[in-house]
Amino acid sequence: MTEPLRLGIAGLGTVGAGVVKIVQRQSQLISARTGRRVEITAVSARTRDKDRGVNLSKYAWEEDPVALARRPDIDVYVELMGGDAGPAKASTEAAIAAGKDVVTANKAMLALHGQELAEAAEAKGVALRYEAAVAGGIPVIKALTEGLAGNGISRVMGVMNGTCNYILTRMGDAGLTYEEAFAEADGLGYLEADPNLDVGGIDAAHKLAILAAIAFGTKVDFDAIQLEGIGSITIEDIRRADDMGYRIKLLGVAQSTGRGLETRMSPCLVPSASPLGQLTGGTNMVVLEGDSVGQIVLRGAGAGEGPTASAVLSDICDIARGLRLPTFGQPATTLASPTRANAGAPSAYYLRMELTDKPGALAKVATILGDNGVSIDRMRQYDHPGDNAPVLIVTHKTARADLDAALGQLPRTGVVTGAPVALRIEEV
Amino acid sequence: MTEPLRLGIAGLGTVGAGVVKIVQRQSQLISARTGRRVEITAVSARTRDKDRGVNLSKYAWEEDPVALARRPDIDVYVELMGGDAGPAKASTEAAIAAGKDVVTANKAMLALHGQELAEAAEAKGVALRYEAAVAGGIPVIKALTEGLAGNGISRVMGVMNGTCNYILTRMGDAGLTYEEAFAEADGLGYLEADPNLDVGGIDAAHKLAILAAIAFGTKVDFDAIQLEGIGSITIEDIRRADDMGYRIKLLGVAQSTGRGLETRMSPCLVPSASPLGQLTGGTNMVVLEGDSVGQIVLRGAGAGEGPTASAVLSDICDIARGLRLPTFGQPATTLASPTRANAGAPSAYYLRMELTDKPGALAKVATILGDNGVSIDRMRQYDHPGDNAPVLIVTHKTARADLDAALGQLPRTGVVTGAPVALRIEEV
Repeated sequence: MTEPLRLGIAGLGTVGAGVVKIVQRQSQLISARTGRRVEITAVSARTRDKDRGVNLSKYAWEEDPVALARRPDIDVYVELMGGDAGPAKASTEAAIAAGKDVVTANKAMLALHGQELAEAAEAKGVALRYEAAVAGGIPVIKALTEGLAGNGISRVMGVMNGTCNYILTRMGDAGLTYEEAFAEADGLGYLEADPNLDVGGIDAAHKLAILAAIAFGTKVDFDAIQLEGIGSITIEDIRRADDMGYRIKLLGVAQSTGRGLETRMSPCLVPSASPLGQLTGGTNMVVLEGDSVGQIVLRGAGAGEGPTASAVLSDICDIARGLRLPTFGQPATTLASPTRANAGAPSAYYLRMELTDKPGALAKVATILGDNGVSIDRMRQYDHPGDNAPVLIVTHKTARADLDAALGQLPRTGVVTGAPVALRIEEV
Repeated sequence: MTEPLRLGIAGLGTVGAGVVKIVQRQSQLISARTGRRVEITAVSARTRDKDRGVNLSKYAWEEDPVALARRPDIDVYVELMGGDAGPAKASTEAAIAAGKDVVTANKAMLALHGQELAEAAEAKGVALRYEAAVAGGIPVIKALTEGLAGNGISRVMGVMNGTCNYILTRMGDAGLTYEEAFAEADGLGYLEADPNLDVGGIDAAHKLAILAAIAFGTKVDFDAIQLEGIGSITIEDIRRADDMGYRIKLLGVAQSTGRGLETRMSPCLVPSASPLGQLTGGTNMVVLEGDSVGQIVLRGAGAGEGPTASAVLSDICDIARGLRLPTFGQPATTLASPTRANAGAPSAYYLRMELTDKPGALAKVATILGDNGVSIDRMRQYDHPGDNAPVLIVTHKTARADLDAALGQLPRTGVVTGAPVALRIEEV
């Protein structure tokens, strides 16, 4: 058996403590599988005196993660502090400069600085791995980078924020308003310190940006993502969508359109009977589509101590086994600058609006849609106690630009009250 | 860029032709991702003159796969002929002896001779990879061996024979008898030349044996699998199960019971709303359960040209990238001899039987079940036109031995007509 692989772990929150537990509990199993002992040499966290449910007494303590990253007695720097810049980035850079392999769960850092870090790691000949950054315990980075390596990828989709899916599920199942479901999730500790990272879709968009880079061989391009959170979704939307055979999910989609790469993170309708439609609660799902393999669906816990730590261990075991790949699957210097698709792929849309209950109101709306090339597939008008009639329209496939033009002209009809809701219906 | 990786491909059926197509079509992509050109040097098949929809004119032709495997101008021998022994095994052995890496889709060969071949490959320092042998395009070998490497695995389950799932789905959806659905599958070309490989569960059991070896670090032990095909399942069973909220699947389960390793491939009931319950048609699904990651579900096409060839390419790309692992994830010489669990884990069971329509008949059955420690959770007696009453029982968790004892005593009651059907209800 070769020399042990020595870890330095920065960040001892839920995930960090989880990694320590696995390294301690599964020491024999990991040795048997990788052919090396995996040991923890030193750790670092903001507070030293805190009960984390693990015995850290055998490990050296470093106040400064940068100092930890540079220690000569570690082989792998495990960054689990989070934050796209600050100590996480500084220590990762220090580790790479010192010739250490790096394992991180930091999606924000990868999504915003992945290109720069990957180039640095590859210039130094070290690994920079991040299975835990996307979809928790699901080995999706590995599936995409290695398992589907012979495929031209056409589309990657995912429900990758468990908190949003929990909120949407509770609105549908328990009839809670968005605000009530949000408060419930908050009470359960599901929300990030800045909840907009969750419900605004930013956290999930970080993950999508990483997947898109691997799938399409392009530089990670977080800013290209068309981002829309779940805050505008109402119980009405969820019920109406359900009536028509759909569920609403915060869905990330990265798709090659022929005119460029389209990436969006937004609430979408998916068929209730599809795997994505069936996904409830905090579970994550990623769908990968390749020209040879067809559609692969991966499902599992997207967060939590055990699942996230499991993904960190996957990277550590790869390194212990001597498996080293470029960060985004191909050398960072060969990644193309992505062409952003100006117009997304055409799609069916779900429209919900309130019309004043006057003769001819519906006709006016239908005319404007038709004038802009938006063709109606299905339409329902619901019973209504007040003056306004809720109307639901499912369009045939239409370009988003045409739809936006039509929506822009609706106010001038004088029959539409409030802002219409338009949600994409994703074919899955 | 380093030297090209040169393939010799034996077997040019659906999968072999599919591999040739991908290597030709995705040549650039594969080079970009692996850092090496992947080229085909020579091929072999039973018949030379046959239109396979691919241009083979640039490749050397070998009549004998053993000669192909030994060619000095190939680096990787790709075995796609099938058959557990014969030319497949002889040529694989020849390739290993000649120091070639081997990629195969041959589940029977791995399930029956995997230990011997793995030891030979590892002694020679070459790779023996087989992602395509299990669940087609789903990268499940990689997910289990690498993605979940830090987990103690507690259970692996899978629907891994698309033909059986197609037959069961059609019986349920279209109300076909087993014989009708079988004939339909046969007409569509879904059945192996020996249909018992499919409907007898043997093909799926080969796959389960391989997964169990990786998951539990044990020598592959095909003979340990408790094997039961789908031939005894009736439309009645499917409808009754549906009434109770279950679907019937040919389910493979490998499970650590504390007293040993339990492996079975048999028709089981799973909850209709679970991912396994929702799986229809020819699609495959594998469920992996680890002590840290919880439950991971993988879904995709389990057969067909593109998906299977995609999996072969995954192995080829790994080798091109220099990623080499022991065949079953840890050195073959360190794999334990599995302890076969004599008694399986307790489970709820679905029982269907026909009772003569006499007073007290049901009481007699209930008494015998109770006397043997089999407790009844739910019971339904159905309307019946004839003399016999169909009775359906769902038991509480019970040991299979107790259930078998009870079933053995039922004939002496004189009220049970024909043989009762007993199907395990798997908690998923």
